[in-house]
Amino acid sequence: MIKTVALDAMGGDNAPGVEVVGALDAARTGEVRVILVGDAPRVEAELSRHGGAGGLPLEVRHASQVITMEDHPSKAVRRKTDASMRVANNLVRDGDADAVVSAGNSGAMMASGLFVLKRLKGVDRPAIVTTFPTRDGQAALLDMGANVDCRPLHLVQFAIMGATFARLVHGKQSPVVGVLSNGAEEHKGTDLTRDTHHLLREHPSEDFRYLGYVEGRDIFSGRVDVVVCDGFTGNLVLKVTEGAAETLVGFIKDAIRDSLLSRVFALGLVPAFRRVKARMDYAEQGGAPLLGVDGVSVICHGGSNVRAIRNALIGAARLADFDLSGAIRDAVHRHGDLVAAAKGRPGEEPQPEAGEAVAGENRGG
Amino acid sequence: MIKTVALDAMGGDNAPGVEVVGALDAARTGEVRVILVGDAPRVEAELSRHGGAGGLPLEVRHASQVITMEDHPSKAVRRKTDASMRVANNLVRDGDADAVVSAGNSGAMMASGLFVLKRLKGVDRPAIVTTFPTRDGQAALLDMGANVDCRPLHLVQFAIMGATFARLVHGKQSPVVGVLSNGAEEHKGTDLTRDTHHLLREHPSEDFRYLGYVEGRDIFSGRVDVVVCDGFTGNLVLKVTEGAAETLVGFIKDAIRDSLLSRVFALGLVPAFRRVKARMDYAEQGGAPLLGVDGVSVICHGGSNVRAIRNALIGAARLADFDLSGAIRDAVHRHGDLVAAAKGRPGEEPQPEAGEAVAGENRGG
Repeated sequence: MIKTVALDAMGGDNAPGVEVVGALDAARTGEVRVILVGDAPRVEAELSRHGGAGGLPLEVRHASQVITMEDHPSKAVRRKTDASMRVANNLVRDGDADAVVSAGNSGAMMASGLFVLKRLKGVDRPAIVTTFPTRDGQAALLDMGANVDCRPLHLVQFAIMGATFARLVHGKQSPVVGVLSNGAEEHKGTDLTRDTHHLLREHPSEDFRYLGYVEGRDIFSGRVDVVVCDGFTGNLVLKVTEGAAETLVGFIKDAIRDSLLSRVFALGLVPAFRRVKARMDYAEQGGAPLLGVDGVSVICHGGSNVRAIRNALIGAARLADFDLSGAIRDAVHRHGDLVAAAKGRPGEEPQPEAGEAVAGENRGG
Repeated sequence: MIKTVALDAMGGDNAPGVEVVGALDAARTGEVRVILVGDAPRVEAELSRHGGAGGLPLEVRHASQVITMEDHPSKAVRRKTDASMRVANNLVRDGDADAVVSAGNSGAMMASGLFVLKRLKGVDRPAIVTTFPTRDGQAALLDMGANVDCRPLHLVQFAIMGATFARLVHGKQSPVVGVLSNGAEEHKGTDLTRDTHHLLREHPSEDFRYLGYVEGRDIFSGRVDVVVCDGFTGNLVLKVTEGAAETLVGFIKDAIRDSLLSRVFALGLVPAFRRVKARMDYAEQGGAPLLGVDGVSVICHGGSNVRAIRNALIGAARLADFDLSGAIRDAVHRHGDLVAAAKGRPGEEPQPEAGEAVAGENRGG
């Protein structure tokens, strides 16, 4: 059956224009039904500018408030009870939508997940997962920015959630998991990575194979299917990757412009360059799922373009087919020994309740 | 006058072969005199295999021991008193060489810097600086892996040292300095980045302009001349950059191979692609200087090829022309208020003596 996705129409840097056109494009594929949540007059004006929804599976749901990039994530989610992002999450909680998508304040999407959708039983911190292209496939990296300060308990849960994601969504039967570090040797890394490494090594999993430490270049090498790190590191990895790729493309353009002959030859390579762009472009992927909350929540780049929103909506609808939440709940339960060992480590105290956790510690990008 | 560089001939993954040929190539330029430090019979055999030193400015100095990648850095430097790396550092300390270069255990090079060359007055932790290419120039990033666990005091000193390096070596008159974080907003980052940010903001420098937080992509954007971070993060940035660039190049090759026509056009672009490779290739840069020790010390990638060793030797000779050590000592002195404020922060205790500092905490890559 066609899935329904609630889209925060007021979220991105260019909302609601980009959101409305992205929703129209997604609805036209017939793969998803979209509820545009936001300031109804503005959203409907945008819809009219683009010919209206016609007979498309698309509707508008009014929300009078907006959470901005400047808002404090968890405070905004609590206080702005009629914010588009919160209302979109409510639709998932109440069963009126199968997934929620937003290109708005990602910390607030994380807070909405905790406050509205609620954490899954056994998960202490939800995490954002991003898919990186490798030469032969893809690798999942988490956390991508939801949790700046992490403890080994959290990274161990990221490993379990990431392996579940890689199995269901990327189709890897026994995913290979690595902990991101500054070297392959055991003595490398920080207290956080070393403790996580020991926990994963000492508690072999039936779901995934733990490889040990991996380095920055392994993310792209195909050696691992799941890379685990704290959200500060994960966010840097994503942005360094974007920056390095843009710079290299810039260098290629510079070198080609240097000679007329090069320019002629380069014209012949336009189709090849286009295929490369499609493999690298985050817009093709659309958004990054928030794992560990009870419902499908997909977080998009603030600067998402129409194509990114369209693909995020289609991707969210597909994710909703997987029952990822149920699978993660089961996986965490199956790894009770590992999680218990992580909880027994010094420094582990009782966890704050869902909805409290983001208040001070999590400063998602 | 031509500078003398002591090269640890036993250091890299392919030592002493790569080192010997790199030294020959460097000596042939006439820009540097090289002392090859290592197992004399083996080094001389390699030299003979490549036609001997002839009349080149190149000599061999015997050292009976080798520090391996498996050795504990500071223990090895203390115990292996006749190790090639340590003897090469001794030559700089004793004034018999102007700089030292090694592609061996980088943690041990850091320890040798502390133990043999000694820390500069006012510097608590030396740092490895790497130069990244930007569209229009270059940016210096430090620390690149010498110090995994850092405090704000260290990052503040990295800013001072990095600005001095950018001014002298990259020729930036008033370098722009940024602290690497997961977002531009002040509330982003970790306790470490926030404390560092406040210190740098509250104590304006006459040497550099402090921009604030920068993100991963800013390393390549040209917005900043100096990027400051802890060594765990810096090492990841370097390796993610290498991995992302290799992956993108692989994608381009895949796309070109997809069609015969593309292959024909690509042939015409070989010169352009070569220019791009030269801009990106770490081998062109050769090595990464260790800032904050009393002498010029350059650390090379373990997998350095002949070209990387050659360029590191020439680069080290040029660095020796700058009196970077004197300039860093002066700069740290000039920033007394900033350093004092950093030392006054909670958690700052008296520093370990030079030579002790690396024992437990620093696990350089």
